[in-house]
Amino acid sequence: MVLDSITSSLDYFMNSSSTTQTPLVIKVGGGEGVNLDTVCQDVANIAATGQPVVLMHGTSAAANALAAQAGVPVRQITSPSGHVSRYTDPETLELYVAAAAGQMNKRLVASLQGLGCNAVGLSGVDGRLLLAERKTAIRAVENGRQRVIRDDFTGKLISANGDLLRLLLDDGYTPVIAPLALGTEAERLNVDGDRAAAMLASACAATTLIILSNVPGLLARFPDESSLVAQVPANRLDWAEGLAEGRMKKKILAAREALDGDVQTVILADSRLPQPIQAALAGAGTVISEQ
Amino acid sequence: MVLDSITSSLDYFMNSSSTTQTPLVIKVGGGEGVNLDTVCQDVANIAATGQPVVLMHGTSAAANALAAQAGVPVRQITSPSGHVSRYTDPETLELYVAAAAGQMNKRLVASLQGLGCNAVGLSGVDGRLLLAERKTAIRAVENGRQRVIRDDFTGKLISANGDLLRLLLDDGYTPVIAPLALGTEAERLNVDGDRAAAMLASACAATTLIILSNVPGLLARFPDESSLVAQVPANRLDWAEGLAEGRMKKKILAAREALDGDVQTVILADSRLPQPIQAALAGAGTVISEQ
Repeated sequence: MVLDSITSSLDYFMNSSSTTQTPLVIKVGGGEGVNLDTVCQDVANIAATGQPVVLMHGTSAAANALAAQAGVPVRQITSPSGHVSRYTDPETLELYVAAAAGQMNKRLVASLQGLGCNAVGLSGVDGRLLLAERKTAIRAVENGRQRVIRDDFTGKLISANGDLLRLLLDDGYTPVIAPLALGTEAERLNVDGDRAAAMLASACAATTLIILSNVPGLLARFPDESSLVAQVPANRLDWAEGLAEGRMKKKILAAREALDGDVQTVILADSRLPQPIQAALAGAGTVISEQ
Repeated sequence: MVLDSITSSLDYFMNSSSTTQTPLVIKVGGGEGVNLDTVCQDVANIAATGQPVVLMHGTSAAANALAAQAGVPVRQITSPSGHVSRYTDPETLELYVAAAAGQMNKRLVASLQGLGCNAVGLSGVDGRLLLAERKTAIRAVENGRQRVIRDDFTGKLISANGDLLRLLLDDGYTPVIAPLALGTEAERLNVDGDRAAAMLASACAATTLIILSNVPGLLARFPDESSLVAQVPANRLDWAEGLAEGRMKKKILAAREALDGDVQTVILADSRLPQPIQAALAGAGTVISEQ
């Protein structure tokens, strides 16, 4: 019954998109507990129907593991408003690029290739896929005091090259994107994967963006997984942002940016389900849309 | 005078290629002492004329540095015939992928982007750009005794996807390729960059392949740099192979494979010259061709 619903929803999606061939953009988190195998299997199954798919991935667990192996401490920046991000100084950047564009990206591409999906891995640096401006002075709170950080290589996204994605998609490839951007001074920059996925979805005129992580979606009473919010109309995004805890705040922000960029539907869903993308398309998650 | 000769040679190359638009394939080594800045500047200058360029890179120094940082010893395999290669066990493979497809590839892409060249970084894993078969049992000589190594992730090249290169080149991108291949079991494999460049040159119907390293070319009396062999006709490749020492043996083999794959000219040249690619096109190096 659940499977029927998933299948018919997928059929509907496939049929509705087969005329327009708008790509489906998937973002999968890079944290602990995310099931990449089932995500890859689902991407391969969907791409095999002819539906164009773009897969954007995170890299946090891989970057942390490589930093630990290299003996470089992982540090966080906490902004005055409470947002937490990776402190990406030049030494950390080298390891972040290695983990994101090297290890995670090629692991996913090889996995998809093994499933018959002709994946091509890129990062935002490649072909100016994602352009960003480096944050040259970041205010951070440490032990209750503010200081300014000037050696961080994190970027604020400016634009995305949808043409490069379309070029690859139209030729039958499945782009797999690592969360880096090219800075205005040609720096390699760490960027937020959720917001980058939103910008890519908008740039390639996707109607649907699915953001998968290791929670079922937006929870009304975090961390109670039974308190899933099933629907968020666009005009209630402020309310949703108020409910969101931690990483979920950025996902709500990404959803808002995607809708502002003419993506019709953003689904925050659970990577741990057996067919996570098809389940999300069938409504298992938080569906955010204009309606 | 030398510069005139370089310029007129480049003009000739540009003019002759402007009708056919066959790509120029450059391989730059990843060893110590290779000047990547001048190579990138030259690639950007040549690509700016409209000449399609593919840049393949090595990664040895970056892979060694990352392995040292991660505390993983770099080990070599010496074959019974004397060929030396990197022992790529699963732990080394992760670091090799990180250094090749992550660090080196994105450093070159960002550098080219900073010079106005719209570079796109790929590895052989992406879009099945390079397919290979894993060497599941390798005979190695250690302390005078032979043993069989079964956990090495090095590949023997099978084929290259020239269509993916043409797709990107025709759209104005400059592909930058890391020396990995996709195995027949969807493994990520370490492959020889020189031989991979030869296969890519052949697959995209390049007429010229330039292999840059930190020596002037083939030396008759290694390491005497004044003993450069300026010309090697194809029918004297056995003789050239006999002269070659160390890494140069693989470059001669790559040249042979490129000529067998209908590449007309292979130039072994010096990355340390101010305009290394234009100098190579002007004849500064070892020119290997059918004539």
